[in-house]
Amino acid sequence: MTATLPQTPRPRVIADLRSDTVTTPTPEMREAMAQAPVGDDVYGEDPTVNQLQAEVARLTGFEAGLFMPSGTMTNQVAIALHTRRGEEVICAEGSHIYEWELGMMATFSGVVPRFVPAPLGVPDPGDVRLAVRHSVHQSPTGMISLENTHNKAGGTVIPLETLAAIRAVADEESLPLHLDGARVFNAAAALGVPVSGITRHFDTVSVCLSKGLGAPVGSVLLGSAAQMRQAHRYRKMMGGGMRQSGVLAAAALVALRDGPARLAEDHRRTRVLAEALVNAGYNVDLAAVQTNIIYVRLHGAAAHAARWAEAGVLASALGPDSVRFVLHHQVNDEALEEAIRVLTA
Amino acid sequence: MTATLPQTPRPRVIADLRSDTVTTPTPEMREAMAQAPVGDDVYGEDPTVNQLQAEVARLTGFEAGLFMPSGTMTNQVAIALHTRRGEEVICAEGSHIYEWELGMMATFSGVVPRFVPAPLGVPDPGDVRLAVRHSVHQSPTGMISLENTHNKAGGTVIPLETLAAIRAVADEESLPLHLDGARVFNAAAALGVPVSGITRHFDTVSVCLSKGLGAPVGSVLLGSAAQMRQAHRYRKMMGGGMRQSGVLAAAALVALRDGPARLAEDHRRTRVLAEALVNAGYNVDLAAVQTNIIYVRLHGAAAHAARWAEAGVLASALGPDSVRFVLHHQVNDEALEEAIRVLTA
Amino acid sequence: MTATLPQTPRPRVIADLRSDTVTTPTPEMREAMAQAPVGDDVYGEDPTVNQLQAEVARLTGFEAGLFMPSGTMTNQVAIALHTRRGEEVICAEGSHIYEWELGMMATFSGVVPRFVPAPLGVPDPGDVRLAVRHSVHQSPTGMISLENTHNKAGGTVIPLETLAAIRAVADEESLPLHLDGARVFNAAAALGVPVSGITRHFDTVSVCLSKGLGAPVGSVLLGSAAQMRQAHRYRKMMGGGMRQSGVLAAAALVALRDGPARLAEDHRRTRVLAEALVNAGYNVDLAAVQTNIIYVRLHGAAAHAARWAEAGVLASALGPDSVRFVLHHQVNDEALEEAIRVLTA
Amino acid sequence: MTATLPQTPRPRVIADLRSDTVTTPTPEMREAMAQAPVGDDVYGEDPTVNQLQAEVARLTGFEAGLFMPSGTMTNQVAIALHTRRGEEVICAEGSHIYEWELGMMATFSGVVPRFVPAPLGVPDPGDVRLAVRHSVHQSPTGMISLENTHNKAGGTVIPLETLAAIRAVADEESLPLHLDGARVFNAAAALGVPVSGITRHFDTVSVCLSKGLGAPVGSVLLGSAAQMRQAHRYRKMMGGGMRQSGVLAAAALVALRDGPARLAEDHRRTRVLAEALVNAGYNVDLAAVQTNIIYVRLHGAAAHAARWAEAGVLASALGPDSVRFVLHHQVNDEALEEAIRVLTA
Repeated sequence: MTATLPQTPRPRVIADLRSDTVTTPTPEMREAMAQAPVGDDVYGEDPTVNQLQAEVARLTGFEAGLFMPSGTMTNQVAIALHTRRGEEVICAEGSHIYEWELGMMATFSGVVPRFVPAPLGVPDPGDVRLAVRHSVHQSPTGMISLENTHNKAGGTVIPLETLAAIRAVADEESLPLHLDGARVFNAAAALGVPVSGITRHFDTVSVCLSKGLGAPVGSVLLGSAAQMRQAHRYRKMMGGGMRQSGVLAAAALVALRDGPARLAEDHRRTRVLAEALVNAGYNVDLAAVQTNIIYVRLHGAAAHAARWAEAGVLASALGPDSVRFVLHHQVNDEALEEAIRVLTA
Repeated sequence: MTATLPQTPRPRVIADLRSDTVTTPTPEMREAMAQAPVGDDVYGEDPTVNQLQAEVARLTGFEAGLFMPSGTMTNQVAIALHTRRGEEVICAEGSHIYEWELGMMATFSGVVPRFVPAPLGVPDPGDVRLAVRHSVHQSPTGMISLENTHNKAGGTVIPLETLAAIRAVADEESLPLHLDGARVFNAAAALGVPVSGITRHFDTVSVCLSKGLGAPVGSVLLGSAAQMRQAHRYRKMMGGGMRQSGVLAAAALVALRDGPARLAEDHRRTRVLAEALVNAGYNVDLAAVQTNIIYVRLHGAAAHAARWAEAGVLASALGPDSVRFVLHHQVNDEALEEAIRVLTA
Repeated sequence: MTATLPQTPRPRVIADLRSDTVTTPTPEMREAMAQAPVGDDVYGEDPTVNQLQAEVARLTGFEAGLFMPSGTMTNQVAIALHTRRGEEVICAEGSHIYEWELGMMATFSGVVPRFVPAPLGVPDPGDVRLAVRHSVHQSPTGMISLENTHNKAGGTVIPLETLAAIRAVADEESLPLHLDGARVFNAAAALGVPVSGITRHFDTVSVCLSKGLGAPVGSVLLGSAAQMRQAHRYRKMMGGGMRQSGVLAAAALVALRDGPARLAEDHRRTRVLAEALVNAGYNVDLAAVQTNIIYVRLHGAAAHAARWAEAGVLASALGPDSVRFVLHHQVNDEALEEAIRVLTA
Repeated sequence: MTATLPQTPRPRVIADLRSDTVTTPTPEMREAMAQAPVGDDVYGEDPTVNQLQAEVARLTGFEAGLFMPSGTMTNQVAIALHTRRGEEVICAEGSHIYEWELGMMATFSGVVPRFVPAPLGVPDPGDVRLAVRHSVHQSPTGMISLENTHNKAGGTVIPLETLAAIRAVADEESLPLHLDGARVFNAAAALGVPVSGITRHFDTVSVCLSKGLGAPVGSVLLGSAAQMRQAHRYRKMMGGGMRQSGVLAAAALVALRDGPARLAEDHRRTRVLAEALVNAGYNVDLAAVQTNIIYVRLHGAAAHAARWAEAGVLASALGPDSVRFVLHHQVNDEALEEAIRVLTA
């Protein structure tokens, strides 16, 4: 017997819309995993991992990258890089680094969050500036962290001008600026810019390959070569030093090659679903539907989600009054159409 | 450019004896990875991960298991499970949890080591008892941790009677007992007992699949189902929640099926190499050569290792006066013979 | 040269209203310090410390108390008592344990805050219930902490019915409930109840003797005898084990005897000052003026405070738009009258 | 009821030799406490605290000092100043910062100890050098900490040449060097040098005023002004920010004035007692009796200590086979003579 969560047998799944993390590796990824040259990455000798790190660094405009098993690890290593114990991390309310990373910023780095309001996931640069501490009786600010797209706000995108303005605040206050870019390729697709148009504003960036891009496992942290040497140590401390992880990097390279171009399709389908839900009377804030995520506000979220699951459409009940749908490349137009029929029946 | 360590091109490698972690996946593992059914393990839905966890739990006699990216993570999660901040972890001097896990016991769990002497890697049960703190002016003892085989002592094996005696101390003092079983299958092979003959003495056990058994990535933590639910949270905090990690578990299942039976061969070859080194005048403590590891004491360790590497035999210089050789299934008799020629030339 | 903050010579201070922590020991306290029998409190042998702990425990209705150098230490030891690493501490926004205790909850206990809104410093029991986490993907809730009176909200008092309702939430959720009672004697005076009428709702309580009560140094943590044994260890870890601290406890016993009865006078004078400020056109929320603290909202807070300091009235500029006045037993009616003349000139 | 340890009534105490921390304030100290000008030290406004900090800084040759409630706090703040999470602290085996500070280095600073052998409390500079880590697979070394006199080794003194040699190692490795100088005035008296002759080798020094010098409470951390500003924050985090702590500083100033000159007498009496014990057949290593501490090795330590306590001589049983005697200014020749009669009866 294992300690994992119970596994409900689901006879026929029309569309698994719980998250974009549920995709399974494509045949191309399986093939790449079977062929990839590998080595012991703890010694820095896995050529496929090295290739992946170099490729993500190139795309995002950074000097170096470091592959890790999850976005939680890349974010938490970044927090460790930028802060000393007792400091504050300025972040938007509802940030993943706080809401879904289980107090790791406190347990590992000894730091606390300092929240700024973020309507539609976008903090006001003036509020960010006000959140910086200067009193000797208060915790110093250690860093600023943004999330783009912002998951809990609905996959929302931070405008480029806002990024530039927050970068300016960071510069004035001599503070490092980190991006939780779990879905930064979605943000780039929505803004119609290369991903480096976003990432260039940051000191470090965390990119997930296992969300919309579709790799089975893995995230990459980006920064300077000196930072990545330090990150190597924190990764090892957290147990993220893997051996022949080139098997994972091989799949991630395929995801990186094929994934970004597919995101616009995901976004289009998300819009279709959102409008269908609104037309059917559901409470959806369409202004927040900017990429591949939809939040529906309704009472009895868990019961609704259970009923839909019976009918083959899986969604996440997050809290008592909220259901989340996330589109991804393994839900095509046909599946979407069928899912809409189920949800609006 | 990546931040990884420099990669020396090596024209012809006769035998990579730096560690048993350097093995590359076998064709059977590659095939299994290509075929494995997978799901999102963060939701507990990866059938291959679940199968691996169940299989390791069955072999070791535990209720439940949890798959993680490394042995550092399984050990450190175990420490977090058993301790509260400020407590002491009794362990043998030279333990991996202290020497090679970079202060994580302090940074994450807030605990310090309390060392007991361990000639040939085996602590005396009486010393373990003396190391337990009872004064209100000292840190309480939180747990006892053993390592079997003991890496830094030379891959040495703890006799079953010693395990039973330390278990008795743990019971008398109401302390949990953890096994860093990175190479517990080597210990079982050396003792000629099933692995459960060792693991049954412990509350939790960490087993590595990527060392002698040959899987590319992964370790499993074993314990009660309740402990694994708690471990799930700590794994998530450390960033060890992976998505479709069934691709790794599939290879690990092959390692678990084929690996243990091969270890006796590794041990035999290790003995051959050790004796050849002694015959050639090297300083090797043959009493410590019990499984697949050999330490040679010699001045200028790094220079020797560099010279051998030129000739195609890779070993690890650990400290100024110590070189380590580790045998594994990808060094066969022919390679060994050739390596011996190089080393004893 | 010392590292302390610069000390501005102030030729004539009419009233130091920066905080109720600025009072100097009375002649009775000095006399008590000169006479007190003392011993080594690290061994539990200081009779005056023991007497103080017993006396505060009696007044608040707890089994045991432990003397510490500051309210930050009593609060942070309580957090360590109630939580395990990675958990959340539910508290009102603006709580002292977060705003003025410099990330210690993260650095020492490895926990993060979870805020609930608190208009006038009073959280809604329903919001407290909603803040409790139950998902395996989130940090578990470790404790609930209240602050009464609530410093940052203006020295505001939590109604007894609200305390009872939050106690009921804590019971339903099996969560410990801590009170930061730095100014709980002010709350009791404002409610017209004995202090035990408030403290009886809590599992642990922190009481400061060096604020309104007037002792030079010290706070006491209250709880069960078993909790105080554990607290003893955390106090030692933080460096709060003092030797002949009976010299401080002696003064604190005088503060405890004479202080509470004086608080109603402080509150009356605070009201007089607040109304004078409003009449002079200052922006003061009189609904928040419930005990001995007044917040004035005005632009250029630091400049105003500096100007008043020149004229002999000291106040705290907290943020760019906020000045705080705090009344205490060393500001009598005459000084208040003179201060009002300065402030409303 | 309080949570303190049980207090055994002792009808007649001839000599309390458990520790030099048990002294009670002298009449001069009581008088100083009654007269001292005080202020709110959290604002840096206590003139007596400022005077004490300046005076200790002057004596030890440092730019600045910071007063704290205990030597544990000054040591642990120093560790926090010099290290980042996950690093190693090189220290002599048996160091107070590890043995008696309850894992605080791990819980607060996230660091682990790296021990060097220390016969008679004196580490070999070569061993210190070997303990410095340089591998990327290991924790970096964050600092070196010495203890002089070394409590657990018997109040032993580090020769000045050894200090200079370890200072040279620290310089070569660019590592900060801290002194736990709880009894550094004893070391200076034993060496016949001013205390600055010792402290000048260090980056930071912790000095206790409540041990041999006889103050009721308090230690001072020394370093640069910039370090003390940072130390101020860590002190606040640990709850060491006290209010009118000038009452304690006043007594400490008397201790600092009168205490050092008395230590030679304590050392002379310690020698007398040690020789009397040896003559009576006790197992005492006279080579370790260098200042005011004597360790006696004998079976049934606790029973012996209990029996002597009945007869009016208090000693500390530390472990099953070890009793410690510590001399201090409140044991005069007459009391010593009587104590020797009891112990050698």
